Amino acid sequence: MARRKLTKAELERSLEGLPGWELMDNKLHKMFKFDSFAEAIGWMTSVAIFADKIDHHPEWSNVYNRVTVDLITHDLGTLSTLDIDLAQRMQALSRED
Amino acid sequence: MARRKLTKAELERSLEGLPGWELMDNKLHKMFKFDSFAEAIGWMTSVAIFADKIDHHPEWSNVYNRVTVDLITHDLGTLSTLDIDLAQRMQALSRED
Amino acid sequence: MARRKLTKAELERSLEGLPGWELMDNKLHKMFKFDSFAEAIGWMTSVAIFADKIDHHPEWSNVYNRVTVDLITHDLGTLSTLDIDLAQRMQALSRED
Amino acid sequence: MARRKLTKAELERSLEGLPGWELMDNKLHKMFKFDSFAEAIGWMTSVAIFADKIDHHPEWSNVYNRVTVDLITHDLGTLSTLDIDLAQRMQALSRED
Repeated sequence: MARRKLTKAELERSLEGLPGWELMDNKLHKMFKFDSFAEAIGWMTSVAIFADKIDHHPEWSNVYNRVTVDLITHDLGTLSTLDIDLAQRMQALSRED
Repeated sequence: MARRKLTKAELERSLEGLPGWELMDNKLHKMFKFDSFAEAIGWMTSVAIFADKIDHHPEWSNVYNRVTVDLITHDLGTLSTLDIDLAQRMQALSRED
Repeated sequence: MARRKLTKAELERSLEGLPGWELMDNKLHKMFKFDSFAEAIGWMTSVAIFADKIDHHPEWSNVYNRVTVDLITHDLGTLSTLDIDLAQRMQALSRED
Repeated sequence: MARRKLTKAELERSLEGLPGWELMDNKLHKMFKFDSFAEAIGWMTSVAIFADKIDHHPEWSNVYNRVTVDLITHDLGTLSTLDIDLAQRMQALSRED
């Protein structure tokens, strides 16, 4: 996916395919809940490998089995295709679906 | 699970519930294959957290999306309940189902 | 270290040996900065293994090469010996010293 | 570093800057020993993030606090600049120096 700003229509369409994600303070936001701390950290590790590969890093916090994520493309000051890419990968790597 | 040697009958019964695992050189052996390197390493991270918690560590090797595991209880010189415990957790944390 | 509330004197003495840590909102707080995202995540992985072993988990957030940590013992509603234990381990596992 | 085969002279010069590394079965080989299992796994996580970014993955195995590494560029059937790149990063991310 080329890196560029999302139009409002693109964002809305993307959100439909991203269960549990919402727009919060202009960032793509979700709280993931795992079965254990071990699974939360393992998921973060997998996501981190992907994130560094596309050179796009999340803001995320962890407490026990929960990971809260906020995505934005800082240098564009808005959401971009990279945020959707990362959110979709986070979703796929979780065991939700 | 208390830590003690497995009887031959216990081992056979345990293996029935552990798809893909086999006895090799007196160790519990399996090759896991994941969809990506990122998932292999994330799985290893989750397993590592559990393994260190029960103070029972695998012999394992990774190449790209594959992780090969050998379990034995070194100080007992044989398989113990801890090996079954670790194998079951590895199984549960994989996406094989 | 047995798990129990810290006295004010113990907390002050512990903080002297924990460079960069401070009390913030009644939690033990520090922002770690690493040379890279890869090192931040690797450090979190090592810490996570230790944290789960002592069954005491941090509140922490990551953005790129920074990890912000807040420690408290929730069920005691205050700082305990476990928080000092975890802070010391975080310190030792970082490359600061 | 561009990806290409190493000349014998380049390999020898590179090995001089890589303490503990040796040529074994035509692969770049080293056994790393860490202070704990937690540090071994944290190091592997950091290395994994870098390895996936350059799309060059190690053969490595872990037992407790030891990680044994073998590097080769499979599709070239020999050692390449990527192996030196990965070995140097592994070295830098360890606490040896």
